[in-house]
Amino acid sequence: MIDNPRPREIAAIDIGSNSFHMVVARVIGQSLQIISRHKQRVQLASGLDEHHNLNQAAIQRGLNCLAMFAERLQGFEPENVRIAATYTLRQAQNVHVFLKRAESLIPYPIEIIPGTEEARLIYLGVAHTQPEKGRKLVIDIGGGSTELVIGEDFDTHLLYSKHMGCVSYNQHYFAKGKISAKNMATAKLAAQQKMESIANQYRNKGWQYAVGSSGTIKAIREVLIGQGYNDGIITGKRLGQLTDKILSVKNADELDLPGLSDDRKPVFAAGVAILDAVFSSLKIDEMRFSDGALREGLLYEMEDRFRHSDIRTRTADAMATQYNVDMAQAKRVKDTAEYLYNQIEPQPGLTKSELLTLLGWGALLHEAGLSISYPGFHRHSAYLLRFSTMPGFNLEQQTVLATLVRFQRKSLKLEEMPELSIYKRKHLYPLIRTLRLAVALNGQRNEEPLPDIKVEANKESWQLTLPEDWEASNKLLAADLRQEQEYWAKAGWQLAISS
Amino acid sequence: MIDNPRPREIAAIDIGSNSFHMVVARVIGQSLQIISRHKQRVQLASGLDEHHNLNQAAIQRGLNCLAMFAERLQGFEPENVRIAATYTLRQAQNVHVFLKRAESLIPYPIEIIPGTEEARLIYLGVAHTQPEKGRKLVIDIGGGSTELVIGEDFDTHLLYSKHMGCVSYNQHYFAKGKISAKNMATAKLAAQQKMESIANQYRNKGWQYAVGSSGTIKAIREVLIGQGYNDGIITGKRLGQLTDKILSVKNADELDLPGLSDDRKPVFAAGVAILDAVFSSLKIDEMRFSDGALREGLLYEMEDRFRHSDIRTRTADAMATQYNVDMAQAKRVKDTAEYLYNQIEPQPGLTKSELLTLLGWGALLHEAGLSISYPGFHRHSAYLLRFSTMPGFNLEQQTVLATLVRFQRKSLKLEEMPELSIYKRKHLYPLIRTLRLAVALNGQRNEEPLPDIKVEANKESWQLTLPEDWEASNKLLAADLRQEQEYWAKAGWQLAISS
Repeated sequence: MIDNPRPREIAAIDIGSNSFHMVVARVIGQSLQIISRHKQRVQLASGLDEHHNLNQAAIQRGLNCLAMFAERLQGFEPENVRIAATYTLRQAQNVHVFLKRAESLIPYPIEIIPGTEEARLIYLGVAHTQPEKGRKLVIDIGGGSTELVIGEDFDTHLLYSKHMGCVSYNQHYFAKGKISAKNMATAKLAAQQKMESIANQYRNKGWQYAVGSSGTIKAIREVLIGQGYNDGIITGKRLGQLTDKILSVKNADELDLPGLSDDRKPVFAAGVAILDAVFSSLKIDEMRFSDGALREGLLYEMEDRFRHSDIRTRTADAMATQYNVDMAQAKRVKDTAEYLYNQIEPQPGLTKSELLTLLGWGALLHEAGLSISYPGFHRHSAYLLRFSTMPGFNLEQQTVLATLVRFQRKSLKLEEMPELSIYKRKHLYPLIRTLRLAVALNGQRNEEPLPDIKVEANKESWQLTLPEDWEASNKLLAADLRQEQEYWAKAGWQLAISS
Repeated sequence: MIDNPRPREIAAIDIGSNSFHMVVARVIGQSLQIISRHKQRVQLASGLDEHHNLNQAAIQRGLNCLAMFAERLQGFEPENVRIAATYTLRQAQNVHVFLKRAESLIPYPIEIIPGTEEARLIYLGVAHTQPEKGRKLVIDIGGGSTELVIGEDFDTHLLYSKHMGCVSYNQHYFAKGKISAKNMATAKLAAQQKMESIANQYRNKGWQYAVGSSGTIKAIREVLIGQGYNDGIITGKRLGQLTDKILSVKNADELDLPGLSDDRKPVFAAGVAILDAVFSSLKIDEMRFSDGALREGLLYEMEDRFRHSDIRTRTADAMATQYNVDMAQAKRVKDTAEYLYNQIEPQPGLTKSELLTLLGWGALLHEAGLSISYPGFHRHSAYLLRFSTMPGFNLEQQTVLATLVRFQRKSLKLEEMPELSIYKRKHLYPLIRTLRLAVALNGQRNEEPLPDIKVEANKESWQLTLPEDWEASNKLLAADLRQEQEYWAKAGWQLAISS
């Protein structure tokens, strides 16, 4: 009998503004075999009030769904599960309430991803699913945001995420399900305004295939098929006919179209208005539907990161180039930081390799802010890492990197530490201490090799041991380390130095 | 008799941390003829407490000096006077108290300039004064900061300003004038720490002539001459001898060196410690003194700006390149903004040409933040303009540009407007309104020419008149302008649109 090893199983969960999705796949050789799909309509976005607070009912619906998904994932290792949350949790002021409660229900980190990252992953899901070669325009109308991507093969050229989705537009333009020609026109015009600033860029770039992804566009396709368009192709003309059909009723409840599920009815008109606006703005001739979506993108990226390269490395390298980082100094600081960090025990909860990788990127980019100006450059580096479009990074990873470089030097105003959920302070503080020491130790920015340095970490108390007699020939470094001791002491940390 | 036209007279005031200086010059053909110099030792920096508040006594000393200078400047037109303030006013939390009170005493704007700008102007002053060709290192140790520049001809290659000066170091390391070997060593080591991060860069760049400027280095030179070194050249060895002389007394009061004025005594040891550290860090062999300083730099730049080109244009163009600005769109917005602004009456107090120029730079750079990311790019643009090193701009001009681009779009959170002193809200609001309209009118980012647009401004109420029938063919623009009306209304402004 052949001993077939049990294939690795991986799972992705998409916490969408309209629905939550989970997909589980088996890794067979070089490809993924989807073995189960789960979907629940949670309508998270409808629980977002005008102050961007997510109400308790919506939080509870979301948590119930996650608890259910968690049952299916029992026994999955953390590196085999990725959970990504999009528009609604990006917007929610009280997102930490949701994340805190989710922690006890599902033992995997929930990553809140930026809109451009959502767009990139959707594109990846489509690119892995569609057979056509050539440049693709991929559109995904979600509950809270619409992603628009142009890419070729597995590379993206244009990426935008716009604050318009079928749930939010429904609430805003079709209150209580009221349908009218005026509502439709207003919603479409609003969507066109959103498209205005980017439409030219997309038209100039051009594409060979326009592809739609996810629920809204899928529903439109199914209704078109119900109308007899068996090819399922969406065109501007057909959207016009669909609009007329919708306008024949006064309320979304009354919509009775073959192929339209009851679930989808309340947000259908808003979805058609948005897609119609996208068609007009970009002058799309026809669009096909693709099964690939955010969750497939997450799966494929998980597999890629596991087997091949991490796109985040490419992102960090590109930023180092864009901001003219002094690579010799960055490498010195990175080497020292990794050398020191490898001597200490990592805090449980996250893998040491992930923490080391973040430390490496932090070291690579800690001086990026010098491209803005020298005074306060650590704050400029933090600004760039916090707000730049960084393919492959979720929002919290960007925040962690920003925090790391923010605290690389000068006084440790720990009250400025942001609230985090996946990365705890117990993980972050050792990274900060290590980077600071690496920066201080390389303060002279020259090729002189560093003395051999031992570090021992015991909670907030660190012990640095340098070779005997080092101080006599390193007065400046000694002064820098004394200064560093003072900074640590003011933050309630201890740095002991001996030789 | 030949009718000699009365030559133009220009004046520059340097509000330094140790002394205030005024220099008045006559413009004769292509050169400046200095006709008077005034100096008063105000010791502004000594009035700065640990919370960076400037005490009343220091404020009063400064104001008295400005009032005295103002008498000499009676009849000078605003475009012929420039007043620049450096370290102490840059640091002072309560700077607005000083500026507010100064307004009634001296009718010219006081510009607070960034450290790098101070360095650039000092270099300019030296470069115009020194005959030598070739690469120069220029060092200026002031009361609160030390500027270090490498440049060639009139171009600077490296520019830094470090927080170390003879007044602040005296307070910190020589409290009550106490002189000891330990104090000297500690002060020197602290200055070396400040130099550490940049020393390599300077040594690698190299120079042919090292030149010192301003009071501290001038005093050191004079004491060396008093010691018999008639060439007045400063070397590391001579600084060592000077240190020994200083260490032969216990208190600064007791210093009795030929060439050292009573005024300079209290801060002399600190100045020597800093210069000695700069010599060690940069490995300077010898340094000569130059009469050119910040005030001469201000004068020459005033004359340059008047007759030739404004360095600020070069700075703005360089930033547009660095941040990959879409120049076609920037030009469209700039043209529209200037076209609109030229139709309205400017508010008195500043020249229309200066306001138009700022508007032009704001339009050129309003999308710079897109290089960081699309979401919130107006805030990113503002961050870049606020914090970048921008040769030729004072801090308030950078703040004005940052504010302009910050408010180019989205809601007008006027409570986020920074406090300004030279530019009033009455100047800024019309610029903001104009830029917003120009951005909205060019929202489609295409080459279609705009319709003919008339604008009338009556305080907070603006009236826009578009050609008849424009709306029928510009539905999207009409929607954008309605949206703009709503934003204005929420800020208490009115925008009426008619055709």
